[in-house]
Amino acid sequence: MLTYSFTDMGSDSMYEYLYKCIKRDILEGKLHPDEKLPSKRTFARNLGISVITVENAYGQLMAEGYIYSLPKRGFYVSKVREIRLLNTNPAKVDRKPAILIPSGKEYLADFSSNQTDSQAFPFTIWAKAMREVMSENQEQLMTNAPSAGIPELRQSIADHLRAFRGMEVSPEQIVVGAGTEYLYSLLIQLLGANITYGLENPGYHKIAHIFERTKVPFCYVDMDKEGVSIQDLEERQVDVLHISPSHHFPTGIVTPIRRRYELLRWASEKKDRIIIEDDYDSELRLSGKPIPTLQSIDVSDQVIYMNTFTKTLCSTVRISYMVLPGVLASRFHETLGFYSCTVSNFEQYTLAKFIANGSFEKHLNRLRIFYQNKRDRILETFRQEPLRDRIIITEKDAGVHFLMKMKSPCGEEEIVESALEHGIKLVPISRYYIGKENRFENTFVMNYSSVKLDRIEEIASHLYEALI
Amino acid sequence: MLTYSFTDMGSDSMYEYLYKCIKRDILEGKLHPDEKLPSKRTFARNLGISVITVENAYGQLMAEGYIYSLPKRGFYVSKVREIRLLNTNPAKVDRKPAILIPSGKEYLADFSSNQTDSQAFPFTIWAKAMREVMSENQEQLMTNAPSAGIPELRQSIADHLRAFRGMEVSPEQIVVGAGTEYLYSLLIQLLGANITYGLENPGYHKIAHIFERTKVPFCYVDMDKEGVSIQDLEERQVDVLHISPSHHFPTGIVTPIRRRYELLRWASEKKDRIIIEDDYDSELRLSGKPIPTLQSIDVSDQVIYMNTFTKTLCSTVRISYMVLPGVLASRFHETLGFYSCTVSNFEQYTLAKFIANGSFEKHLNRLRIFYQNKRDRILETFRQEPLRDRIIITEKDAGVHFLMKMKSPCGEEEIVESALEHGIKLVPISRYYIGKENRFENTFVMNYSSVKLDRIEEIASHLYEALI
Repeated sequence: MLTYSFTDMGSDSMYEYLYKCIKRDILEGKLHPDEKLPSKRTFARNLGISVITVENAYGQLMAEGYIYSLPKRGFYVSKVREIRLLNTNPAKVDRKPAILIPSGKEYLADFSSNQTDSQAFPFTIWAKAMREVMSENQEQLMTNAPSAGIPELRQSIADHLRAFRGMEVSPEQIVVGAGTEYLYSLLIQLLGANITYGLENPGYHKIAHIFERTKVPFCYVDMDKEGVSIQDLEERQVDVLHISPSHHFPTGIVTPIRRRYELLRWASEKKDRIIIEDDYDSELRLSGKPIPTLQSIDVSDQVIYMNTFTKTLCSTVRISYMVLPGVLASRFHETLGFYSCTVSNFEQYTLAKFIANGSFEKHLNRLRIFYQNKRDRILETFRQEPLRDRIIITEKDAGVHFLMKMKSPCGEEEIVESALEHGIKLVPISRYYIGKENRFENTFVMNYSSVKLDRIEEIASHLYEALI
Repeated sequence: MLTYSFTDMGSDSMYEYLYKCIKRDILEGKLHPDEKLPSKRTFARNLGISVITVENAYGQLMAEGYIYSLPKRGFYVSKVREIRLLNTNPAKVDRKPAILIPSGKEYLADFSSNQTDSQAFPFTIWAKAMREVMSENQEQLMTNAPSAGIPELRQSIADHLRAFRGMEVSPEQIVVGAGTEYLYSLLIQLLGANITYGLENPGYHKIAHIFERTKVPFCYVDMDKEGVSIQDLEERQVDVLHISPSHHFPTGIVTPIRRRYELLRWASEKKDRIIIEDDYDSELRLSGKPIPTLQSIDVSDQVIYMNTFTKTLCSTVRISYMVLPGVLASRFHETLGFYSCTVSNFEQYTLAKFIANGSFEKHLNRLRIFYQNKRDRILETFRQEPLRDRIIITEKDAGVHFLMKMKSPCGEEEIVESALEHGIKLVPISRYYIGKENRFENTFVMNYSSVKLDRIEEIASHLYEALI
């Protein structure tokens, strides 16, 4: 019987420690592929810990693909591919450590993924734009792009922002980069690494990971019903605040205009305060009269606007951009202009053409309808018997996700695990809260962009199974 | 008459200070487009400084496009594009600072650029590979790539390294990213930001810029005739050493096998020491029997191998990669695996196909011949009267650059400036030395990848004009 001592767990939580022990044994081959793990209850009893702790550890291992589960049978060790390095020098082979990478898990439905539905990408039109670029622009394609991106793309983006968002920005303010994460690494270099960044709580975790990895000080600022709490903001020593006022992830809060002015007032109190406005899904979401961006009502040049094509085009074309205030744009060109632009010319010119010839606007119109139909179809299926009585759906106007409250006698983590056993990956909204009480109990963030419609009945029935 | 006070110059050198003063006046509009600047001699006399100082400041301004010169006439202010932001709110216009970006300068020949000759890029074959990928791999194209890159590309790279470099590496060791600069930002996160990085002196400056911008401690290590000096290395507290042993830039030194073992010995003395082996142009250069890479003779897992497709494919497709030792590869997946890969799936699949179907190897063979012919043609032209008596060409087996010593009564900076007046951008090798005596006097690094062959006679005659 598998057993671990909890005496060396250091600062880890019980569940983290258990997760690490099992993972290590899998990686080191002490636990073999397809070996059955103890049942949660037996394991908990034997280790003298709670069932929830074992559940959490198993959940984490399953989410990372180290173990898998079979309905009504239990948990098993995944086949992790063991790659021992071949080498002409046999003496060397044994000295190279094996690299072990868990094999990926296929889900029936992954509601945590932002992956684009392949039906949503305009392959034909994109391929045509790329062909034209490759036959017409060969000299330009080979000419090194300015650090901030080719002028044509920046102009196209400025035109798009004017038409779509009513924003008046100059192409010289725009910096294009290979994804929002990369732009963050530039912003940290531009704004400084020894100031404090403030993040929304709850919020999008990846930014916190970047700050952690780059050792940049940051803190969490509480949200109330209108967005970031000004009171909490005042109490903390935040220099640069990251927010998504147009559509907060995951709660869906739209910050009203009065709160926007309060945020700008907060920024204006100190010259070096900056608000980073993340407008990540505005194109997919907005209908009717949009609330102006903070960037467009900021007169003191303290707002950086960020947006991305990873949602509107596809998650695997890595193009994002930011709009810097004039002073910061100049500083960018002076101090960071030596960096090569991280997006290839081929894709920059293709995207510039795609926007300039109107394809992007048409694509957005189609995309909104596509996701609307997809969402309607999913919700319609979920609202049929027997699932309908067990769920409440909210925030359904939200880009490519909705919130779903599950009525179940089980707790969140039990639902997550039970769903995983049915091949469905769910993320409770509580995961986005850091050390703060969650006001959405048993509620899940359902990102449906990658979900396959032709399996939606199957998904609904598995979800029901997981809830009972 | 233009005048500046040197009392507020702070820690700047005289030339930097003067450069900044003039630049500021241009940006603020105090100096107008096409306004003539004082001659170097007059200006120096009036300011009570040396002519060299004015020359250096003018040289820097010219290199950045703020000023231009007319042969025999003098220096003039460039047209810097002034972009005032349009806005619906007229009150706002005046409060937004103008962003001013110098307009780019067109050179007759830019020997400092690594830009790819458009004739060197296999447009047809690349376009075909991309078309095939877009029609055959639509589902895969939309599937989010692992952080280190798609498995197909990493496998192709591993196969290429085996065939071309005799290296046995596993695809799991390979991390693909949007350019070497980006990979450096990952390495800093992986290896740590509070250890000391060592750079070759002389060497490739961009890496130093990255360390400066990210506040990472680094120092320079002297080179002797065989590469990095072990003595100098021992004396400094280097933890991670960056070298290009197969072909040092800019001197062309190839580190012999005995020095390679000494470097590996140095690394092996402390567990956490790492050597980053930059093999940036091996595919373009090697002929005959190559010296094995450090990576392939390292048995203690302390070498990170780096290479790029920006030289072999084109500088505007941003794909580089690194090969991590097993332990670091595992650490990468654990701690940095949350980052999205910065190269788009479209280009990853296209490149994977391009390598796997043999197109890359054929392309490399063509490319070596292409650059060999180009170099021969340039050298042949340069060796004709009247230029031949004024130059000595060395290191001509070097990838896409050679070294050229100019016999001229003028100093290096005068030659640079005089060449610029003739539309030719030159970089003396001394620019790659930091605080150390340069053993190559009046010698220039001639990167010919972007130079147009159909203008080579014109370039040679302008170069001659610049030297007399």
